[in-house]
Amino acid sequence: MDLIAETIAAIRPLDEAAMNAARAHQDRLTKPRGALGVLEELSVRLSGLAGACPPPMPEPAAVAVFAADHGVHAQGVTPWPQEVTGQMVGNFLAGGAVVNAFARQTGADVRVIDVGVRTDLPAADGLIVRKAAHGTADMTLEPAMTDGQVRAAVGTGIELARDLVADGHRCLVTGDMGIANTTASAALIAAFTGRAPENVTGYGTGVDEATRTRKIEVVRAALERAGLDERSDPLTVLAEVGGLEHAAIAGFILGGAAARVPVVLDGVIAGAAALAAAALAPDVRGACVAGHRSAEPGHAAALQHLELRPLVDLELRLGEGTGALLALPLVQSAVRVLHEVATFDSAGVADKA
Amino acid sequence: MDLIAETIAAIRPLDEAAMNAARAHQDRLTKPRGALGVLEELSVRLSGLAGACPPPMPEPAAVAVFAADHGVHAQGVTPWPQEVTGQMVGNFLAGGAVVNAFARQTGADVRVIDVGVRTDLPAADGLIVRKAAHGTADMTLEPAMTDGQVRAAVGTGIELARDLVADGHRCLVTGDMGIANTTASAALIAAFTGRAPENVTGYGTGVDEATRTRKIEVVRAALERAGLDERSDPLTVLAEVGGLEHAAIAGFILGGAAARVPVVLDGVIAGAAALAAAALAPDVRGACVAGHRSAEPGHAAALQHLELRPLVDLELRLGEGTGALLALPLVQSAVRVLHEVATFDSAGVADKA
Repeated sequence: MDLIAETIAAIRPLDEAAMNAARAHQDRLTKPRGALGVLEELSVRLSGLAGACPPPMPEPAAVAVFAADHGVHAQGVTPWPQEVTGQMVGNFLAGGAVVNAFARQTGADVRVIDVGVRTDLPAADGLIVRKAAHGTADMTLEPAMTDGQVRAAVGTGIELARDLVADGHRCLVTGDMGIANTTASAALIAAFTGRAPENVTGYGTGVDEATRTRKIEVVRAALERAGLDERSDPLTVLAEVGGLEHAAIAGFILGGAAARVPVVLDGVIAGAAALAAAALAPDVRGACVAGHRSAEPGHAAALQHLELRPLVDLELRLGEGTGALLALPLVQSAVRVLHEVATFDSAGVADKA
Repeated sequence: MDLIAETIAAIRPLDEAAMNAARAHQDRLTKPRGALGVLEELSVRLSGLAGACPPPMPEPAAVAVFAADHGVHAQGVTPWPQEVTGQMVGNFLAGGAVVNAFARQTGADVRVIDVGVRTDLPAADGLIVRKAAHGTADMTLEPAMTDGQVRAAVGTGIELARDLVADGHRCLVTGDMGIANTTASAALIAAFTGRAPENVTGYGTGVDEATRTRKIEVVRAALERAGLDERSDPLTVLAEVGGLEHAAIAGFILGGAAARVPVVLDGVIAGAAALAAAALAPDVRGACVAGHRSAEPGHAAALQHLELRPLVDLELRLGEGTGALLALPLVQSAVRVLHEVATFDSAGVADKA
């Protein structure tokens, strides 16, 4: 059995007994029942994921920023030059990007993985090079990746998740960098959810109306060329219209779920990747925490399809893992309550009549 | 001039030059312009509050939990016994409540202030006793507070804010404890916003439908007795239908705004108190950060009236300062970006075409 099949086989449903124990424990804590709303539900789910109440604190966390380029950039879907992907990798390694600032704040480790940047980047401390290709091909003309490339990228994500958990990380956070990757995300989301390109394609980094119209046409052309629909094999969908970072993030989610560790999803790129992971293994959704909902319309569609409620909703559209890192303290708070809060009995507080 | 008038006189509008500097700096950082959404707007506002870009990091923070009892408890507006207010004060001092868990996580200091618990609590390390009364009177029968009581409680809040800032705190967080205080909050919100009692009165800690109906009648009766409307003097509104913790929190907000330090507001009790503070000094809104939007309908009404957008929206209804503490890392992230993120020039990253 290969690595992908083996990982999928290791993913289990949530543990009902641990979830019931978490519900019962929440009801004994010194607060009105249900008063922590969405965070109580999250604490129950993370107990089910770990198979224990309380589950381990989701720390230390690690954010993996998977960087790759996109052949569809040639179709004029963004005003940003393709070189920015590699330049931002340099910024991540130097600690100057927003993801670095938020990682320092939350104590998360940052891993930067070149899973398919077009150019060969200078060797640098901390850069993990796992190029499955030098960027994807133009999905409007041919499949973005070969089957071998997509499997290599998914495998890179699985292995990184496994290694981070082996190193003691108890929470994984998805990050991405790839100029033009909201276009590939829109194509993936349209393919996996069955929605029309115009309903899942947005302004990305803030493109103008004409560029957004072009993005929609590009997504439609790629989907028509590839002949995809909701019954297509998930790895084939990734290969036809996805990005190398999407494939790696899908693997990262699969690896986290197999290790029963929560995976906090960033924005629309992670949402598209999570759709691929969930199509391969529906139970991965139990491990996925939607960090935020971005300004991209496709992200809302992806989260709805995955039945995930975002923790943060602040019109972010940056990527890199930044939205997920903003949500990380909320995930930690949800679990901390189960560890630290006194019960009515232990605190000598009267329950309601 | 008395303390309240002196504090109001010290509150200034936001500094436009610092806000423009923050906008210009955000546009040079290595991210698409506007990509941090609501957090960029917040960073601009906090620059205007401090009169500097970047503003000081909003840390260390301190959460002040103002505890008090309510005469309207006699009207059967909650199934919780009134003794729980004092018992929860003990829980706060022992570190066992949710507010303590979240404060430990965020590094915030906790201050517990008895501004009007009905019974005399046992002396304890860390308990600040500033009783302006032994609970309020029943607002359906008479004014909840005298003018002297309301001024004493507002003064307590102002002084605590001033002392915390003098001790080096650079962010204030509101907290509260008071069985029946969502009923007083609804009355305050109805009075300050002009909305009907049934539109601002909710389920509080999770009361049943019959109790909520009773709460609405109680709020209506108190407002009719007091003859309040939107033109009433804000301290009179507080005295007629407010709580001692509402008055103290209003003072705390005034004190924070006068010191140009952000005040992160918790839920519906803080929202009601902020309406009073803003009625006294409209510019306090520049210092107020809406930590979250709670499940209480009156809270949404208060935030709309204050034109504040909540950072977190997770169906919380706990109080104590918990929702504001959950938002605190987001406030810190917003400012951290201005301090730490590289510019396009400094990082050697190309800007968009």
